[in-house]
Amino acid sequence: MAIATPEGYRPLNEGTVGVFLAALPTIRERLGGEPTGWRVREVGDGNLNLVFLVDGPRGAVCVKQALPYVRLVGESWPLGLERARFEWEALRVQHRLAPGLVPEPLHFDEQLYAIVMERLAPHIIMRKGMIAATVYPRFAEQIATFLAHTLYFTSDLGTKAAEKKRLLERFAPNVELCKITEDLIFTDPYMEHERNRWTSPQLDDAARAIREDLPLKRAVAELKLKFLSEAQALVHGDLHTGSIMVTATDTRVIDPEFAFMGPIGFDVGKLLGNLLMSYASQPGHETRRGERVEYQEWILATVQDVWNGFERRFLELWRSRPEGDAFPVAHFPGPDGARALEAARRTCMRRLFVDSLGYAGTSMIRRTLGLAHNADMETIADPDRRAACERRNLALARELIVEAGFFPDIAAVADRARIVARG
Amino acid sequence: MAIATPEGYRPLNEGTVGVFLAALPTIRERLGGEPTGWRVREVGDGNLNLVFLVDGPRGAVCVKQALPYVRLVGESWPLGLERARFEWEALRVQHRLAPGLVPEPLHFDEQLYAIVMERLAPHIIMRKGMIAATVYPRFAEQIATFLAHTLYFTSDLGTKAAEKKRLLERFAPNVELCKITEDLIFTDPYMEHERNRWTSPQLDDAARAIREDLPLKRAVAELKLKFLSEAQALVHGDLHTGSIMVTATDTRVIDPEFAFMGPIGFDVGKLLGNLLMSYASQPGHETRRGERVEYQEWILATVQDVWNGFERRFLELWRSRPEGDAFPVAHFPGPDGARALEAARRTCMRRLFVDSLGYAGTSMIRRTLGLAHNADMETIADPDRRAACERRNLALARELIVEAGFFPDIAAVADRARIVARG
Repeated sequence: MAIATPEGYRPLNEGTVGVFLAALPTIRERLGGEPTGWRVREVGDGNLNLVFLVDGPRGAVCVKQALPYVRLVGESWPLGLERARFEWEALRVQHRLAPGLVPEPLHFDEQLYAIVMERLAPHIIMRKGMIAATVYPRFAEQIATFLAHTLYFTSDLGTKAAEKKRLLERFAPNVELCKITEDLIFTDPYMEHERNRWTSPQLDDAARAIREDLPLKRAVAELKLKFLSEAQALVHGDLHTGSIMVTATDTRVIDPEFAFMGPIGFDVGKLLGNLLMSYASQPGHETRRGERVEYQEWILATVQDVWNGFERRFLELWRSRPEGDAFPVAHFPGPDGARALEAARRTCMRRLFVDSLGYAGTSMIRRTLGLAHNADMETIADPDRRAACERRNLALARELIVEAGFFPDIAAVADRARIVARG
Repeated sequence: MAIATPEGYRPLNEGTVGVFLAALPTIRERLGGEPTGWRVREVGDGNLNLVFLVDGPRGAVCVKQALPYVRLVGESWPLGLERARFEWEALRVQHRLAPGLVPEPLHFDEQLYAIVMERLAPHIIMRKGMIAATVYPRFAEQIATFLAHTLYFTSDLGTKAAEKKRLLERFAPNVELCKITEDLIFTDPYMEHERNRWTSPQLDDAARAIREDLPLKRAVAELKLKFLSEAQALVHGDLHTGSIMVTATDTRVIDPEFAFMGPIGFDVGKLLGNLLMSYASQPGHETRRGERVEYQEWILATVQDVWNGFERRFLELWRSRPEGDAFPVAHFPGPDGARALEAARRTCMRRLFVDSLGYAGTSMIRRTLGLAHNADMETIADPDRRAACERRNLALARELIVEAGFFPDIAAVADRARIVARG
């Protein structure tokens, strides 16, 4: 049964994308030549949308169109087209705040729910690069900048309440995609649910242990409450290594359709969790024992550089551009005031750190026991090898959630990851 | 210079209110008789609006109309008429969740920004009753019910995320009134500002001490950040004893124009702070020494009954009607699960308690050092007597803010109030 869609909506295909783009003068100009000479390929390998790459004689664009259902599951799971508009608006905010770190937004079609944006080339999805043990030397610095800028300038530290409340009003209706996170990350993996799956029977005991782990579930419930109620900043909402495209020197964050006003630690933590999950998966990709040890150390260095870089940049912005309504500078005059304000800033960063570890852990668990899994693990063909990696991933995840407050710094997290990996 | 207003808007007066109401069939029916026989009185003594009481042969109504400026200050401080619509919508939510504890909402006029509601009689503003040392034996129980029901059922514990996000979208634009709170409560009193005033010269030293108190200002900045960013529930936003009308047996909360999705502790705390401020003011109203001691004890009993009653009812609702998306019941099966969930509930109430004490303290300071003062203190004619009461009020307020986390329970707050009063 086809899902009802608004008048004018139709899914594009490789044959119709050119006609759509040819009607947009600036895009036509960008591609160059005649539409008949444009090459169109559908490459959507994500869970939700159609994605077309269009190459012309002069340039190239990417077209992302929302489908009225979850592509991963099919028409049995309808999903509102409006998410394309939230993505478009979030992309524009991110492009303004972190230029060069997202694809340039070019056009939004209100009827087709289609975004036309810069085509990234020769970028690949970072997750694929990490499965192939590729080092990205500029990544930590660039993603830390993305995080610090997009989160700081949409928080009460970096923007006025009036502007922040406009973002709140605008993104509050992105209910459906938030609900996916609420269910798939914070709810399903901790109970019996038909959507769950895991490497079975190898992880049956681990999955049961997590379903029965009351301290863990209590901590996860606190993280879910925070996700539901703390409108700290405009978060990307799905910032894993599959939402990042990279080259050796360039980092771009894509797919902000889950964007909403939520906890800062959710973005930072989801990214850290996905990096740590890649770390746990590396032994499964070795063709000889110890082959990935050096790469694993690069990942742990990256985990630390991401957090430390984020913290440093966020603090720098707070010190140099206190343009929000929180923590009025006028309350903290002179050297004593400056010291008190700096102490308050450090306390705030500590809270973000603890939140981030918790959200990192929930991302690692959901991708092991829930509906959507990661290629990092899924591409390990031998289920016993895969399960061994996944078991270590779950062990570290649980510690990050339940003992978040006991990690003094990100170096301690890296140390703990090494110990769990040996265990 | 007159402020521009939307077409169709005009301030009502005692002569035109009847014409307006006569055109509303259900209101006309409610009042009875002919409009010429209706008695109209303008009684607005608040800071912002026109308020008309209209009596007919059969019944009575109250008409509250927004003015396009702050009445307390004049046309030099414009204020959007839209606040009337936020008030109307908040009133309807409250009436649904806590029927009998707010005036019945009857009609909203989109052009006049006027709310027609039940006329409360023989209710008086609770603050006036407390200045006259009137005991309200049902008050604590009724206001605790109001707080628990309106806050629980608009939080992630008592309502689904989709519905909560609708409230978030709807009330996020109430920017202007939130800004008044941000400025007048959390900012101005802690710095030199032309809007500030206090009993001078008696409190000059105390005002200066607060302006220079870095630990206090840091704690206040944290409370302000929470006010800006934590969308826990639909809060009334201005719940002091001047926003409550009472008889010996009935309690009604009025004036929710400051409503927005904010921290639960803000409503609870503002109320507790205003009760504690009344407590501190009582010696100033004595005509013979010790005359108000018994009444002061009633206030402290009320402070405790309000918090304890709120906590008990909120917990009862959480246990019996877990209809929100936070803390999924399915995660906590069996007796062990129930115990873990109950522990989580107690932790949550502890957080709300600590928040409430902080917000109580900020309310007590702003009404002593900021723009808007309380009749509790203002009606003490002798400035030396008034300043003595206000000084004790400031001392307790500071403790509530800086040491919020050290109070084990509300009884300890009452004890501390007694000790400060003796000091």
